[in-house]
Amino acid sequence: MILLAVTTPAELAPEDSIFVRLAASCPADWRAYVEHDFVRQLADASLPEACFRHYLGQDYLFLMHFARAYGLAAFKSDDLNDMRRAAAALDALINAEMPLHVKYCQGWGLSEADMAALPEDPRNMAYTRFVLERGLAGDLLDLLVALAPCVVGYGEIGLHLKADPATRLENNPYRDWIETYAGADYQEVARGAVVQLDEVARRRIGEDPESSGRWPQLAETFGAATRLEIGFWDMGLSPADG
Amino acid sequence: MILLAVTTPAELAPEDSIFVRLAASCPADWRAYVEHDFVRQLADASLPEACFRHYLGQDYLFLMHFARAYGLAAFKSDDLNDMRRAAAALDALINAEMPLHVKYCQGWGLSEADMAALPEDPRNMAYTRFVLERGLAGDLLDLLVALAPCVVGYGEIGLHLKADPATRLENNPYRDWIETYAGADYQEVARGAVVQLDEVARRRIGEDPESSGRWPQLAETFGAATRLEIGFWDMGLSPADG
Amino acid sequence: MILLAVTTPAELAPEDSIFVRLAASCPADWRAYVEHDFVRQLADASLPEACFRHYLGQDYLFLMHFARAYGLAAFKSDDLNDMRRAAAALDALINAEMPLHVKYCQGWGLSEADMAALPEDPRNMAYTRFVLERGLAGDLLDLLVALAPCVVGYGEIGLHLKADPATRLENNPYRDWIETYAGADYQEVARGAVVQLDEVARRRIGEDPESSGRWPQLAETFGAATRLEIGFWDMGLSPADG
Amino acid sequence: MILLAVTTPAELAPEDSIFVRLAASCPADWRAYVEHDFVRQLADASLPEACFRHYLGQDYLFLMHFARAYGLAAFKSDDLNDMRRAAAALDALINAEMPLHVKYCQGWGLSEADMAALPEDPRNMAYTRFVLERGLAGDLLDLLVALAPCVVGYGEIGLHLKADPATRLENNPYRDWIETYAGADYQEVARGAVVQLDEVARRRIGEDPESSGRWPQLAETFGAATRLEIGFWDMGLSPADG
Repeated sequence: MILLAVTTPAELAPEDSIFVRLAASCPADWRAYVEHDFVRQLADASLPEACFRHYLGQDYLFLMHFARAYGLAAFKSDDLNDMRRAAAALDALINAEMPLHVKYCQGWGLSEADMAALPEDPRNMAYTRFVLERGLAGDLLDLLVALAPCVVGYGEIGLHLKADPATRLENNPYRDWIETYAGADYQEVARGAVVQLDEVARRRIGEDPESSGRWPQLAETFGAATRLEIGFWDMGLSPADG
Repeated sequence: MILLAVTTPAELAPEDSIFVRLAASCPADWRAYVEHDFVRQLADASLPEACFRHYLGQDYLFLMHFARAYGLAAFKSDDLNDMRRAAAALDALINAEMPLHVKYCQGWGLSEADMAALPEDPRNMAYTRFVLERGLAGDLLDLLVALAPCVVGYGEIGLHLKADPATRLENNPYRDWIETYAGADYQEVARGAVVQLDEVARRRIGEDPESSGRWPQLAETFGAATRLEIGFWDMGLSPADG
Repeated sequence: MILLAVTTPAELAPEDSIFVRLAASCPADWRAYVEHDFVRQLADASLPEACFRHYLGQDYLFLMHFARAYGLAAFKSDDLNDMRRAAAALDALINAEMPLHVKYCQGWGLSEADMAALPEDPRNMAYTRFVLERGLAGDLLDLLVALAPCVVGYGEIGLHLKADPATRLENNPYRDWIETYAGADYQEVARGAVVQLDEVARRRIGEDPESSGRWPQLAETFGAATRLEIGFWDMGLSPADG
Repeated sequence: MILLAVTTPAELAPEDSIFVRLAASCPADWRAYVEHDFVRQLADASLPEACFRHYLGQDYLFLMHFARAYGLAAFKSDDLNDMRRAAAALDALINAEMPLHVKYCQGWGLSEADMAALPEDPRNMAYTRFVLERGLAGDLLDLLVALAPCVVGYGEIGLHLKADPATRLENNPYRDWIETYAGADYQEVARGAVVQLDEVARRRIGEDPESSGRWPQLAETFGAATRLEIGFWDMGLSPADG
């Protein structure tokens, strides 16, 4: 089981990080998420354009709520260090990632007004609202664990695609997407999330996370968020079911 | 459009109540919810047992989060009157409705431990987390509007089934379900929710809700919750897709 | 230090309970709270009536926000057991304790409308808002720790007064107050809070609370709430400073 | 009454802004805050240094919680525009204002570690926790109204001091403080808060705020926050009472 789980490159998250331990607690789900057909089809350029466009539009709505989750993380922080990280993530999302996303989507014929007016797919809604609710019902650790499959997972997917000989960059309409998540900037964001998760976990559940009374619930949160990511890719592949 | 919308019997909610105005803002969705095939099949006893059992199990998880939403409503109340109503709803849910539900489910071969351990269907998750998040991001009115399609809608469904000649009670395995929501106790709960919604709306957006700047967003919340109810019935009809 | 702290009778909270450990982390503050002059003057009937009336009026406002905190605890609960406890506390506060308080205050010439319209003393505000904010920024354990000095502390004060030969019951206008908190009903409430705190702490920080990374912050929360209780008694003794 | 209230220069907030209407709803409190002795003594350099140092240390703790409130505002925002404003305020507070404050305090012999370890004065606690709690129990408008007396009030105080012939800048140890809040950068922040408050109020309670059912409660929130500001200045003048 453990062997199955360690799909995460060590340059992104060390084997003893809480992130890798959480991914190892739901190895089949984790693999189903990071190796999803949607990702494979992006890599070999076989993904139908309609699927990618549906994904892009929903991702715009997703990023809004994800940014709100980092506002919440700032509120839930106990010290200036955690507040700075949350504020930096919030700022990056709304002042860099979203404008980039908007510009990128324009290349695909989607205007920002179009995207803001899209009906939110329930599979999208389930994910963002789950994350926000975990953050409000629980503490900062619960919130960061719910955010991790997305933030770190996209970094892992980027590294996989970069390393995979099946990935085709030339004449791949999705090349920008691949290079964004494999790129140095995003990798630094993802590694930062791994480090913060370790720090907050150390303070809140100690050095030996699996022995903490909170471990089953944290693993459940991580697993649920991972399955909601799978649902997000599924939504990408079947845009009409929303 | 308006004619289409007024499916709600006046004994449950007066035509000028904010509840009826909200239902009238999304008439097709409202009708699709209260007249859903799942409901029709309950009424004429044609619903496959597996569908009902899936629904019952998910409803157990749903009721937990719904009860939490009433705890949140107590926190968000400004006066003792609203607090008492929230506390009464919370108490009714966890000390009356859930034990009743548990007992009822035992008759269908589902133990409480089974239900508590069920994987939560994403269509269930989307609904409850949406309601809780609305309640936390917005005010008490946002929360009550998100709760209304469920609380009042089940009352409307109960009345419809009772009045509909196509409803069959004899030898209908779902008779208890029908009689619960058509019954005097539940009708009082639903009417109470209509009254409270009117009172809180009057205080927060005035006598003419549609002219309030908040109306588009409140109607959007009500519509989204109604569509998530439709998703819940859909889930009931296709248990395997979860 | 430890000796100084164990003012809590074992019948209320066992020596190894997390409650006693928290009180032992701020022994001087704890003693200053439970043995405050306000309490001594209640016991020997020397408390000026104006002080008691100011306290009663502020306590009405306090109970409202305290009840809201239990609504929040219901929302933050992970299981039905914790939800039931929070709902029972909420119900007891608004449907038993507050009406009792109102009736009792009428005997002192304070009507409910008078009390609801009182300006909230900042020392009162500081306490209730601190508790609610801890509950929202942290998890259920943070919230219960912030609530404990009040819920359990009043139980301890009741037991002290009952056991203290300096306490005078005959012709003491505050006799009802003393007997309420020394009485079996309130003692059961306070013991229940001790038990729940232990259970939630076990699940969230394990068997050895002092070694948890959260201990310093939990002790800080408990200490701050205890000092805010001292401020509440101070407010009782100097009603004009509000 | 109205005449008494309009202490706010029109360059900061137009007479028909909701900010001026709120200040006009508690004119005596507003005046007592912006013309407090603490402010006068800053202006004429008569403020004892110990008072200023106590104020500076408590203000450090205050800014932390105020920054958290802007994180919360980002979470509670409905659109990207409000999110951007909240994120900008959060960023300004933790990445510009707090480092500036820390540097400034070093000039007064207060290190950041000293300040972070200070016991929080209950009069400080009452204010920040009130603001956060309003933001969580209510909606974005409730939160912005609770924040306004600080954000805009300091701008008004800065303008008053600049315009007042009694203000002495030469050889005034508090000159930097005065020039910060009178300066163009801070004035822009304060004016931005006035504009956002108007926009959010228009969307949530319409064009005629005083006729909204929420007006009494919003005015109460504004008045309470203003009185808590007075308490903050009082704390500055009597550092030992904390």
